[in-house]
Amino acid sequence: MRHAERRGRLRATAAERGLDAVLVTDLLNVRYLTGFTGSNGALLLRTDPSPTHPDVFGTDGRYTTQAGTQVPDVELLVDRDTVAALTREAVRGGAGRIGYESHHLTVDGLHALEEVLADAAAGGRVPELTSIRRAVEELRVEKDADEVDALRRACAIADAALAELTSQGALRPGRTELSVGRELDARMLAMGAEAPSFETIVAAGANSAIPHHRPDATVLADGDLLKLDFGATVDGYHSDMTRTLVLGGAGGHVAAWQREVYQLVAAAQAAGRAALTVGADVVAVDAAARDVIAAAGHGEHFSHGLGHGVGLEIHEAPGIGPRGAGRLAAGMAVTVEPGVYLPGHGGVRIEDTLIVTDDAPELLTLTSKELLVL
Amino acid sequence: MRHAERRGRLRATAAERGLDAVLVTDLLNVRYLTGFTGSNGALLLRTDPSPTHPDVFGTDGRYTTQAGTQVPDVELLVDRDTVAALTREAVRGGAGRIGYESHHLTVDGLHALEEVLADAAAGGRVPELTSIRRAVEELRVEKDADEVDALRRACAIADAALAELTSQGALRPGRTELSVGRELDARMLAMGAEAPSFETIVAAGANSAIPHHRPDATVLADGDLLKLDFGATVDGYHSDMTRTLVLGGAGGHVAAWQREVYQLVAAAQAAGRAALTVGADVVAVDAAARDVIAAAGHGEHFSHGLGHGVGLEIHEAPGIGPRGAGRLAAGMAVTVEPGVYLPGHGGVRIEDTLIVTDDAPELLTLTSKELLVL
Repeated sequence: MRHAERRGRLRATAAERGLDAVLVTDLLNVRYLTGFTGSNGALLLRTDPSPTHPDVFGTDGRYTTQAGTQVPDVELLVDRDTVAALTREAVRGGAGRIGYESHHLTVDGLHALEEVLADAAAGGRVPELTSIRRAVEELRVEKDADEVDALRRACAIADAALAELTSQGALRPGRTELSVGRELDARMLAMGAEAPSFETIVAAGANSAIPHHRPDATVLADGDLLKLDFGATVDGYHSDMTRTLVLGGAGGHVAAWQREVYQLVAAAQAAGRAALTVGADVVAVDAAARDVIAAAGHGEHFSHGLGHGVGLEIHEAPGIGPRGAGRLAAGMAVTVEPGVYLPGHGGVRIEDTLIVTDDAPELLTLTSKELLVL
Repeated sequence: MRHAERRGRLRATAAERGLDAVLVTDLLNVRYLTGFTGSNGALLLRTDPSPTHPDVFGTDGRYTTQAGTQVPDVELLVDRDTVAALTREAVRGGAGRIGYESHHLTVDGLHALEEVLADAAAGGRVPELTSIRRAVEELRVEKDADEVDALRRACAIADAALAELTSQGALRPGRTELSVGRELDARMLAMGAEAPSFETIVAAGANSAIPHHRPDATVLADGDLLKLDFGATVDGYHSDMTRTLVLGGAGGHVAAWQREVYQLVAAAQAAGRAALTVGADVVAVDAAARDVIAAAGHGEHFSHGLGHGVGLEIHEAPGIGPRGAGRLAAGMAVTVEPGVYLPGHGGVRIEDTLIVTDDAPELLTLTSKELLVL
């Protein structure tokens, strides 16, 4: 149902651009439009499909069964050279102008396509290839109900996995970043995640000042800031959450500078979330959080953008940062993740995944943002 | 050390082809040549590097620290638009002919590169772009000692994870394919795998007849064949192993047809392994196993190639199948994985990862291939 609706939207785009057909080769875009999750598949979408020349989903023999189950509503073509076979189908349907994804197709891929077209035209007029650019990605920016549901479930797993770790004492001095990261990943998998959303970040002590620290053999110690940036993938959709806590030892001690930085980042994050309204300019959303940090004299310690879209990719449109462009719309799924990083000392980042709505944004990552001292 | 050796081999290729520099943009190829594991990086390799115009590794600001650690022996350039910045570097070094990876660079990427070149040439002669095709992949086919070591560790984790599952009774009637798959993945992660090599296949009963079945809610039952195809990733290198066993129930019962198919596939797999010799034609290697199966009247039930290369990718050169081309060389890492699939009944596949040597191939996946009845 959803997939047919999505194909309908792409068909409207194709018609607007005067195309007879579109070849979708980016696997995530194919998944978005058909539901197919295998490693090889492409879609020929026609502007005016008919019973004799319908849309065609192509894959190879490994996926015949899977395609039948996952893509029951699109004609199936099984061929080792999937894109070439779909291209010949397009020519047979009389397509004169064919759209393709120039941001995905490789230079070699385009040459192969041109050869197929010349062959298939058999001396007649060779169909013209035109890039549709990121037309499917543009459709993907505003999530539909099924997508929001998958994101909600992906966020719930991340929340639950972290809750298990904290409640069972797994975040404690003496463990290494690597072992904590692996346990977090294993718990998300056990809870039904298909995979972690990305390489889980566990950064203790001075490492927390490195925005994208890779977990290593560093041992967690009393008094450390501990930054966890992680997510779960469910039905292909990625959650993304960061929490920073303090390993306070028996006395529950938090250094004054740690508390100060934490409260600052929390205030900036709240300001960023409050700025997530329909029609808001992404640069203004970034500024809402950044200004809070800059006013406290830490502007130079917030070295990245405020957030990004999230969905079938962990980073997708819209980018929310000082160099971004565009406005928010209802249904966009985005992160808000300011940070303050003091090199050599430590850093704090707090990140949520949210859905922009006509009302207040819907918060999907529900783990508390109060400063947690373990 | 290894990375410098590998760059030296690519430099020799570049010199042979009359190139002044090569832009390596495929991330796995960049990793192979530099050791960098981040998500954005590219390498400018010069045919005649000098202190003023050395090789340059490019990445963005997220990876400054990581690049310093992982790529200490190559000049670092940090720029948001990495490939454009490296291209300008190449022009500054006077490169007239620049190689690029046309099987990786997108159509949009090539256009962007051409614009940068035209700009950088500033009215002078615009450097010429020439595809190096899969030159780096060709180097990657024969593994060096570090790579074999990583593969050995990746295979050892898969072996150990399966041993835990079988010894602890985790493969038993009543569980679902999905829960078994998740537990296998979690155990590999707990043992130090970075990730499963691919979506783990767990296929019980009739599902075992589907070569690439995705684990689902199917419940394991007494008398089922149970096919497990999985692997672990270590230092980026993938192991790949399949074992098929029988859930024999209390009586340890195995149906005659199950035993017959198992012994046939095991014999074919042994014949395939025995054919892994330096200089062997990949079609002949495939035939060595396929002929055993065909002679037993099951030719049509072995519907895929015998094996494939494995390394930084789960499927890489050489392909070992009826339509393959080329000969084996020492140091190649390959799988041998014949199968016999009886639709609606069940199937058996047995797969190892091995290294071709001047002597007998080195077996990396050490789990027994005797028929296991649980």
